[in-house]
Amino acid sequence: MKKFIAELIGTCVLVTLGCGTAMLVGCNAVMGGGYILTALAFGLSIVAMAYSIGNISGCHVNPAVSFAFLIKGDLSIKDFCSYVCAQILGALAGAGILAFIFNTGKLVDMTGGYGSNGVSGVGDNYATAMIVEIVLTYIFVMAILGVTSKKAKHGNVAGLVIGLTLTLVHILGIGLTGTSVNPARSLGPAIVAAIDGNSDPIKCVWVFIVAPLIGAALAALCTKLLEGKNE
Amino acid sequence: MKKFIAELIGTCVLVTLGCGTAMLVGCNAVMGGGYILTALAFGLSIVAMAYSIGNISGCHVNPAVSFAFLIKGDLSIKDFCSYVCAQILGALAGAGILAFIFNTGKLVDMTGGYGSNGVSGVGDNYATAMIVEIVLTYIFVMAILGVTSKKAKHGNVAGLVIGLTLTLVHILGIGLTGTSVNPARSLGPAIVAAIDGNSDPIKCVWVFIVAPLIGAALAALCTKLLEGKNE
Amino acid sequence: MKKFIAELIGTCVLVTLGCGTAMLVGCNAVMGGGYILTALAFGLSIVAMAYSIGNISGCHVNPAVSFAFLIKGDLSIKDFCSYVCAQILGALAGAGILAFIFNTGKLVDMTGGYGSNGVSGVGDNYATAMIVEIVLTYIFVMAILGVTSKKAKHGNVAGLVIGLTLTLVHILGIGLTGTSVNPARSLGPAIVAAIDGNSDPIKCVWVFIVAPLIGAALAALCTKLLEGKNE
Amino acid sequence: MKKFIAELIGTCVLVTLGCGTAMLVGCNAVMGGGYILTALAFGLSIVAMAYSIGNISGCHVNPAVSFAFLIKGDLSIKDFCSYVCAQILGALAGAGILAFIFNTGKLVDMTGGYGSNGVSGVGDNYATAMIVEIVLTYIFVMAILGVTSKKAKHGNVAGLVIGLTLTLVHILGIGLTGTSVNPARSLGPAIVAAIDGNSDPIKCVWVFIVAPLIGAALAALCTKLLEGKNE
Repeated sequence: MKKFIAELIGTCVLVTLGCGTAMLVGCNAVMGGGYILTALAFGLSIVAMAYSIGNISGCHVNPAVSFAFLIKGDLSIKDFCSYVCAQILGALAGAGILAFIFNTGKLVDMTGGYGSNGVSGVGDNYATAMIVEIVLTYIFVMAILGVTSKKAKHGNVAGLVIGLTLTLVHILGIGLTGTSVNPARSLGPAIVAAIDGNSDPIKCVWVFIVAPLIGAALAALCTKLLEGKNE
Repeated sequence: MKKFIAELIGTCVLVTLGCGTAMLVGCNAVMGGGYILTALAFGLSIVAMAYSIGNISGCHVNPAVSFAFLIKGDLSIKDFCSYVCAQILGALAGAGILAFIFNTGKLVDMTGGYGSNGVSGVGDNYATAMIVEIVLTYIFVMAILGVTSKKAKHGNVAGLVIGLTLTLVHILGIGLTGTSVNPARSLGPAIVAAIDGNSDPIKCVWVFIVAPLIGAALAALCTKLLEGKNE
Repeated sequence: MKKFIAELIGTCVLVTLGCGTAMLVGCNAVMGGGYILTALAFGLSIVAMAYSIGNISGCHVNPAVSFAFLIKGDLSIKDFCSYVCAQILGALAGAGILAFIFNTGKLVDMTGGYGSNGVSGVGDNYATAMIVEIVLTYIFVMAILGVTSKKAKHGNVAGLVIGLTLTLVHILGIGLTGTSVNPARSLGPAIVAAIDGNSDPIKCVWVFIVAPLIGAALAALCTKLLEGKNE
Repeated sequence: MKKFIAELIGTCVLVTLGCGTAMLVGCNAVMGGGYILTALAFGLSIVAMAYSIGNISGCHVNPAVSFAFLIKGDLSIKDFCSYVCAQILGALAGAGILAFIFNTGKLVDMTGGYGSNGVSGVGDNYATAMIVEIVLTYIFVMAILGVTSKKAKHGNVAGLVIGLTLTLVHILGIGLTGTSVNPARSLGPAIVAAIDGNSDPIKCVWVFIVAPLIGAALAALCTKLLEGKNE
């Protein structure tokens, strides 16, 4: 139950700060500062949460990350289901907080869809969006599995490394798909956007569920292969 | 007494560099670089101070943080009062240094109020400002309590994590309330601004005293709950 | 074989994210955010890879770095050749992934040459470009050899330090040569650009092969000298 | 002799990358990215050097830092003189490298004076410039003495913390005095600028020699006081 609450809070924080920054400062304008602010907001949310809930649940806050640990054998199927539920509820809560702040504060959502992901950045080509999300999630999960590997003894820098890697994949990905690499982070804002009358994000959200899971699976298999055995 | 001096110096540095950067480069213009510079200035001030005065006083430099440690039982009421006095005096000293530099250096204060916090970013809606400050302080204090937890053994990266988390909550919050999460940081500049003829900040400063204390209390209680017992 | 695959993946990630960011957001415009985003993308790619493939191959992902370890006596000639092959193949793969994403996603390559390096930033003066690349590679490799020195016990921060140093040399170098300091990172995009019809990068690519190797050799010799003996 | 060479190289790198970035991208324009790039270039130069020459000389690369260690009793007068000579020679060498690159590469020096410091940012008020430099150097040296204190056991993050603190004091200071906090860093470029026909920087360089030494002395005394005894 504590793990469930921890994952819910962590994903809620990720969506509130990450998607909220994109909504507030915009993230498509390369000329402005919004691009880097959004990339930092997502990455630093992981830094903050890794060191507060990391000892309780491992701070996955991402179904794709939980899926990788499931494949590696470090998470049971029962825990996996519980984690994913908590993450989706947390993402919905985060999008709900943003809806409250932006509506009552008379603020303009510069993304038009609660910071949800889309395929317009890659010419509406679903195949390209899939490849982008698979590559970015693969890199993100490779770093997570490597830095948290017990054999590696990277110890207390793990949270910093994972957060900076999330910032990294946002730096390339914001201009392409907005960067999901996290099905819960895509689903929560897409649902709240649909409730609010914008159903575009929910129509393509399957890309941001399927592709991150494929990328995470590839990273888990690749890590197992390179490390020689499951540690 | 050493702890008192350490907290006074630390809060003075936070206000001088954080509010000073906002005054110099402005922090509302998303298009310019001022937004990220201000967010970094506040966060890196904590990094710098955590490793210089951290061993003496713990480097709270924030009444909300001291309040959380009071609730967790890690700070006595007497020390709490002493810390808060030092923090407010330090914030006043910092705002005073900025008044000297900006007046003698013929510099324009781009915030118009010594970098103090306000509610205009959220449509003058006090409830929204309260929610924003409670959420941001909750996240900031969760990270502090987590990373400094003796059980967690995060050791020497704690100062980096706390500083980066302060940068994080500024990234979302600068465009909303200016980000307080720290009653002393709000009070010092508001008082000096009032002396200088701008009484707007002092009128709403209560929001930035009450909300951070609520957010810190929630984070302390939540941490106690998740950790199972006071460690 | 595992080391070969690790170096191939690592160099592929470096080129995909580093050169891809330059292609997407541009890196010559100081006024825009592209300059710092590109510098961060290269540096954080090293952070991400150092903690995932570092334990397998050492995460050189750069023939100049492998050359420095060869000179220091920490890498055999056979391994050096194997590493360099993997790095060049990885860079080609990275440039190929970018070709796919940009072509199918109908995206404009803002560098016009897959993020390859050139001499136009220094007035087409090859001597200046050589000096710039020698100096930048010298600094980058000095930091790598210092922070990974067994005697120094810098342990788990090494990957962060090396990544931040790569960001550093990009901050000065992007406006001059685009910053190579890595023959593989220059060769891969130059070859793919040539296939795509732009043969300018391939014509001056020798500068970005020779100069980084000279800089790395100087750093290796200087480190041996300063440390007194090969450790 | 090794320490002398290490300090010379380190200061040369600091000036080449820090001042070079300011010359290349400009650092007064808040609207552009030059401000943050310059702040990062100075800070990350310290990160890179701390982990490469730190084990040899301690990586002071700054007469004010050496002065603080002299006052604390951790550096002999003979070593202090040797360090300062090396630092000044290194700064001259760095400015010389920049002169070569900018002249042969037909590049425009956007600072007009090899990135040297000045008082125009504070309305030509020398007293304000003195106060700014004293405050910034005090903060910078407090962080250095705190994080390198043997009692504190901050170990391998020291270089990161010191570098980020240098970035911090640049964030506020670039718009005021350009940020010296380092007499050698100011003297080298000012001399080369004077040779190149611009004698403005050399006329006020005394401010950037005297003020950093005062700030460093205050920090050393304050640290001794707060720590109770010289450790």
